[in-house]
Amino acid sequence: MMKMNDYIELIDKKLDEYMPVEYPENIFKSMKYTVTLPGKRLRPVMCLEACRMFGGDFEDAIPTACAIEMLHAQTLIHDDLPCMDNDDFRRGKPTNHKVFGDAIATLAGDALLTFAPQIILKNSRNLGAEKLLKIMEEYFHAAGAYGVIAGQVVDIESEHSTPENPQKTLDYIHTHKTADLFKLALRTGAIIADATDEQLKEITEFGQCLGVAFQVSDDILDEISTFEEMGKTLGKDKEAGKLTYTSLYGLEDAKCKVACMLKKCYDIMEKYNIDSLVFDEIITGIKKRVGN
Amino acid sequence: MMKMNDYIELIDKKLDEYMPVEYPENIFKSMKYTVTLPGKRLRPVMCLEACRMFGGDFEDAIPTACAIEMLHAQTLIHDDLPCMDNDDFRRGKPTNHKVFGDAIATLAGDALLTFAPQIILKNSRNLGAEKLLKIMEEYFHAAGAYGVIAGQVVDIESEHSTPENPQKTLDYIHTHKTADLFKLALRTGAIIADATDEQLKEITEFGQCLGVAFQVSDDILDEISTFEEMGKTLGKDKEAGKLTYTSLYGLEDAKCKVACMLKKCYDIMEKYNIDSLVFDEIITGIKKRVGN
Repeated sequence: MMKMNDYIELIDKKLDEYMPVEYPENIFKSMKYTVTLPGKRLRPVMCLEACRMFGGDFEDAIPTACAIEMLHAQTLIHDDLPCMDNDDFRRGKPTNHKVFGDAIATLAGDALLTFAPQIILKNSRNLGAEKLLKIMEEYFHAAGAYGVIAGQVVDIESEHSTPENPQKTLDYIHTHKTADLFKLALRTGAIIADATDEQLKEITEFGQCLGVAFQVSDDILDEISTFEEMGKTLGKDKEAGKLTYTSLYGLEDAKCKVACMLKKCYDIMEKYNIDSLVFDEIITGIKKRVGN
Repeated sequence: MMKMNDYIELIDKKLDEYMPVEYPENIFKSMKYTVTLPGKRLRPVMCLEACRMFGGDFEDAIPTACAIEMLHAQTLIHDDLPCMDNDDFRRGKPTNHKVFGDAIATLAGDALLTFAPQIILKNSRNLGAEKLLKIMEEYFHAAGAYGVIAGQVVDIESEHSTPENPQKTLDYIHTHKTADLFKLALRTGAIIADATDEQLKEITEFGQCLGVAFQVSDDILDEISTFEEMGKTLGKDKEAGKLTYTSLYGLEDAKCKVACMLKKCYDIMEKYNIDSLVFDEIITGIKKRVGN
């Protein structure tokens, strides 16, 4: 069975390979800068592992997995812009616009949104046209106004006004801002492996729980961690008056929520006989993050 | 034979239909705002007409044509942002970020980049998977760092420094910033009509000449037109020290260039027996713009 580090090494190699620096160099350098910042590669790892788990060859999922990491980098670049969260550091390095300027950073994000699916089409023709179209549909849905962007919009709007139903709004933000990309990774991996509709439903449920657990753990770390550990400026959500799990329920309840969502992940794995060292590692990693 | 106005009416109706306003409303309103601003709809018209001209049913090209108008709107929204060209008016109305704020405008542009191809996939299944993938490839190429974004990057960079070979740089900007979307429209229309590779080559050449003619005419109008006629603030390129055809060669030579490129368009139409009232109208329209 594969382990996290085997996948991460492979993904890092492929990301570098897929991202050339051509003319006009600045835009390609800017795209590559954020995509190749060292990271946990959670989303592409999930994509490869879902593919393997459902009986597929994880090598078939590499272009899709890398494309999802590019999409994730796109959301980071634009979220960090001065007109959004205005962050200067990401993964311990200056954010994209701090290095390349706001204009190039905006365009680099734009470019990644179509570069990523281009990587899939160029490198996954062996999957066949119908399957590629299914992957495209999943990608467009998760990347757009029905997916991660919906989450970001409601997140921004929560800064300026208290929503009528904060719990519902928070669920909405977490589902779309974070869980949607987890689900995209898991679902596309499963689709590549020809998973059944039933299996797709299971893995989507798993992605939803894991995504929420991860996002709540992020809310917690924003309060209790340090710049050195996280590589980004912390405490900003609180300062901006953002709606987060900790602002709504406090630290202790947030930790309970993480534990509860991760328990659900284990239950799903047990119920459907999901046998995966990698998902074990990811769940344990989230637990450790918040000291559970 | 179809005329411009028949197509425009149809496109406007379909754009409205394709763009719902769902939760979170602000993002969908922002997307729809710029896409449905009244315009000449040059790109979608070209797509429909190319399809008709090569023996296809132009109704088959409607989703693709509308998607290309959405992509065009995306480039306008982001180009107008304060960190780019910082424009307050577009088509006589306040620009997107002036109405919705910089954050939502940035996200609306992002959302359109994946919403547009989603519209194609949802509404053009009758074209078959292989043809849809070809259209996706054309779309990604034109929308990204090898297409319109490459043009925008070099355009921005030309503000800050004089390139070694200004003529070559200017050609590059015009080709990518403007002609690439014209070519996308014409090529996808032709692909939907099952045009041959030879025909695709011809129509690409036509789109290149028409695109350059249109962009040079825009450079000219930036100098000689008025806010009332154009619906946007003029003279900004000159102020910013941007590389334009008029800044490089002066007004008279720019007018000659437009005439010359349009002559080439006519030559291509004659050579390949392209019989189209609509392309006649478009060429005549560009001529009139610059008083030729």
